[in-house]
Amino acid sequence: MNFPTSEEAEEAFYSAMRDGDVDGMRSVWAEHDSIACVHPGSEPLLGRVAVMEGWMQILHDGIVPVQPEPLSASVGANLAIHLVNERVLDEGGRLIASVVATNVYELGRDGWRMLLHHGSQTPAAPAVPQQLH
Amino acid sequence: MNFPTSEEAEEAFYSAMRDGDVDGMRSVWAEHDSIACVHPGSEPLLGRVAVMEGWMQILHDGIVPVQPEPLSASVGANLAIHLVNERVLDEGGRLIASVVATNVYELGRDGWRMLLHHGSQTPAAPAVPQQLH
Repeated sequence: MNFPTSEEAEEAFYSAMRDGDVDGMRSVWAEHDSIACVHPGSEPLLGRVAVMEGWMQILHDGIVPVQPEPLSASVGANLAIHLVNERVLDEGGRLIASVVATNVYELGRDGWRMLLHHGSQTPAAPAVPQQLH
Repeated sequence: MNFPTSEEAEEAFYSAMRDGDVDGMRSVWAEHDSIACVHPGSEPLLGRVAVMEGWMQILHDGIVPVQPEPLSASVGANLAIHLVNERVLDEGGRLIASVVATNVYELGRDGWRMLLHHGSQTPAAPAVPQQLH
């Protein structure tokens, strides 16, 4: 898989989360050991093996119904940084978690690949339906 | 203040936190509105005014006794990404919080400046002294 822009790599990243697609997730990340991933509230995972094991555990449990909203982006010659608001929804489309993510991509021989993903939960209150009795 | 490398910008960033130095903190960040800062558990702050107001609030409350430990770094032509473990200590040198931070720097006319800081707390247990009765 070749991603001519960091936006296309990002699209594939969130598609893989939504589809529970481990192979898709594997193809998004750079194929060397300088990659790193921080899941919300967790210790950093460093290197290809640790990062991919982390995603296999998450995607093994099912799909992640995430809706990304770009906040800002800085694209350099060979590195790109995207700041993204991730809205995690339940089956009814209700917000169950809000995560802010820093996504870093690098330009290699095969196009843009993910180098770092750092997500952390924000205090945005989930939309819990209220019943008045 | 000119920082010839991203490492020197990072050193000034952590010095400003440790010294409660608002002017030092201001001089570390790029002087445009594409900067962003995510404090642990918080919503992202976007743009120069919001980012600097956030730091003024934090540093107004006192110094942040932080000890950075580099985890990984990727330096491109004009962007650099550092992943850092931040150990926050109390006056007795005991660990009171452990934060993982993604620090992004960009090379401008005046050298390297901070473009993004994203910190999130990790579950590392604080070293609480245990008393057996």
